[in-house]
Amino acid sequence: MLVAVHAGAGFHSQNRAKESIRACKQACKEAVKSFEQTENILNATASAVVALENDPCTNAGFGSNLSLNGSVSCDSSIVLGTGASGAVGNIQGIKNPILVAKALAIEEMKGSLSLGRVPPIFLVGEGARDWAIEHNIPYFHPEKLITDESHQAYSTHKALVERKAEKDAHSSSCLYDRLDTVGAVCVDSSGNVCAATSSGGVLLKSPGRVGQAGVLGCGCWADACPEEDISVACTTSGVGEHLIKTMLATRLCEAIKHSTATASVVEATSKCFQTHYQNCEKFFSLNEPSSKQAGFLGLQYSAAAGVGEVFWAHSTHSIPIGYMSSRDARPNAFISFMEKDRTSQVSSEDCRLNISGYCFRLK
Amino acid sequence: MLVAVHAGAGFHSQNRAKESIRACKQACKEAVKSFEQTENILNATASAVVALENDPCTNAGFGSNLSLNGSVSCDSSIVLGTGASGAVGNIQGIKNPILVAKALAIEEMKGSLSLGRVPPIFLVGEGARDWAIEHNIPYFHPEKLITDESHQAYSTHKALVERKAEKDAHSSSCLYDRLDTVGAVCVDSSGNVCAATSSGGVLLKSPGRVGQAGVLGCGCWADACPEEDISVACTTSGVGEHLIKTMLATRLCEAIKHSTATASVVEATSKCFQTHYQNCEKFFSLNEPSSKQAGFLGLQYSAAAGVGEVFWAHSTHSIPIGYMSSRDARPNAFISFMEKDRTSQVSSEDCRLNISGYCFRLK
Repeated sequence: MLVAVHAGAGFHSQNRAKESIRACKQACKEAVKSFEQTENILNATASAVVALENDPCTNAGFGSNLSLNGSVSCDSSIVLGTGASGAVGNIQGIKNPILVAKALAIEEMKGSLSLGRVPPIFLVGEGARDWAIEHNIPYFHPEKLITDESHQAYSTHKALVERKAEKDAHSSSCLYDRLDTVGAVCVDSSGNVCAATSSGGVLLKSPGRVGQAGVLGCGCWADACPEEDISVACTTSGVGEHLIKTMLATRLCEAIKHSTATASVVEATSKCFQTHYQNCEKFFSLNEPSSKQAGFLGLQYSAAAGVGEVFWAHSTHSIPIGYMSSRDARPNAFISFMEKDRTSQVSSEDCRLNISGYCFRLK
Repeated sequence: MLVAVHAGAGFHSQNRAKESIRACKQACKEAVKSFEQTENILNATASAVVALENDPCTNAGFGSNLSLNGSVSCDSSIVLGTGASGAVGNIQGIKNPILVAKALAIEEMKGSLSLGRVPPIFLVGEGARDWAIEHNIPYFHPEKLITDESHQAYSTHKALVERKAEKDAHSSSCLYDRLDTVGAVCVDSSGNVCAATSSGGVLLKSPGRVGQAGVLGCGCWADACPEEDISVACTTSGVGEHLIKTMLATRLCEAIKHSTATASVVEATSKCFQTHYQNCEKFFSLNEPSSKQAGFLGLQYSAAAGVGEVFWAHSTHSIPIGYMSSRDARPNAFISFMEKDRTSQVSSEDCRLNISGYCFRLK
């Protein structure tokens, strides 16, 4: 199997870069370990995200951004290539939101409830929390998810909002530097594939706001087509409102489904990002140009050939990336930085995309 | 302007048919009246949905299906062709959820908040309710949304669940007969377009469950492309879980964007429904075949020609439809029934689609 993770598109200083790389490595190791124990791609993907949620340096689970009212509420979703999926929005009092999304996917796979009721795949708020507790995911005091750093960021920016700071480009960019939604994609040698996302949402969000991480097809998507010998998965990071409207995760999965060589994956990905995100001017005209920031991580794999391609891209300053296959002794993790002179960058007037990939073999 | 509405794909007995036709007529009249007063397509669309929500015969607002815990919680969304949009999920204590979705779209159009924060477009639960109250939408006691009929349906089916009724085809179909999500699409002569959806969700749903009506792009979608002289809008009804995964509203808008003649709209719609819904076997294999039930209503319009096409389709027994243009003295409303011998039906092994359309002129 292969796992790839990211710790959020945003801005990474030297210190944050170091922490994020450590978090990505740990997440990869947990996923590989989980797969060795269970041979289950859903477990492996969720294990990677649990590790990222538990790390205080990411905006997911422990250390999540605080809402305008000072509370932590999280969004998370998971999708299997088979179509099973689960999503939670604005959930409080649960340490690892991804485990609730995973439990929803597992319950869905069990089939209809009595009276032919279709099991829920998207739960929000208190209902999501109560469902989680009923399904043996323990309650966790929401305040315990707050770190000193997340509280500090909240206090600083809340004070700015209270001083009625007008649309200040600098403050704005600081706010969105802390995007840091996390995500993971996994595939095994047979082409079983899974994608997952988790997020505390944007700092100072309206209570009750759900971002793309809680919306299926927008935060992540996966599709396994054995008859076409292709498995794809994608997870996104960025401004949730735009990622919801543009359904970027689904669009990317569709775009790379028929791209086999590295060059064509890069081309398809760039084109898709331009068409379905960057050039959707009408969505962005409603807000600041900085809201065009996004990042994503995906993979595609052919089980017959036993080879695939992981790719990552971002229009933000940086994104921490990690990947590891069960053949590797250790994970590979690094920060992908936006550099001015790289040829792999796709540029447009006000939003560049830095895109890279890595070819892997599982057979 | 032209408005088209539906009162939910499902099963309509003679009595329910009469009530639904009345509700559709009223909704059309309210939309036309609102447009005459404000010349605003967002207002007109929301007015149609408010009328449907207020009618006890629909599963939206007053008279909504009850959740497993006996409460009413609603989903609603609205999308303008310009890209502005708003959605609420699992909201309680608000009489007209569509007005919260509309207010979110209006706030989004005002641009970024202080510190460059992107305004929320998707709010759920208590946060959504509190945001609504802050934006002058009054609190409404949730119990006042329960009708005798909705309580009766709840009691009957809850008793069946408690008796641990096993997957019973008859009970199941009764449950999903009460789908009745409502929706409206509107367009004015200049091509300004809007789509909206509202729902109380499926009877006996898990508390916290959000269906397609609360998910942008799944419950409804709209797109105005003046440079291509085309405006499209669509709203869906059916099993929310599948409509979320298949993003049917967005897919349909894309499919009809380049179909000008009536025949090609029907063809594009049928093909899209087959490709992106009916033939997505992997989503349905998780549940009962009855979960393939769906219905939708859409329109496409060319401002240069001043002509357009309203269309509606359903794989359920029936769907109540209404439409009216500001040139009409009165609305046209009826029940579209699934008939065995109609040539316009698209059939496949286990899911037929009944599709019809109406050509209109606004100039």
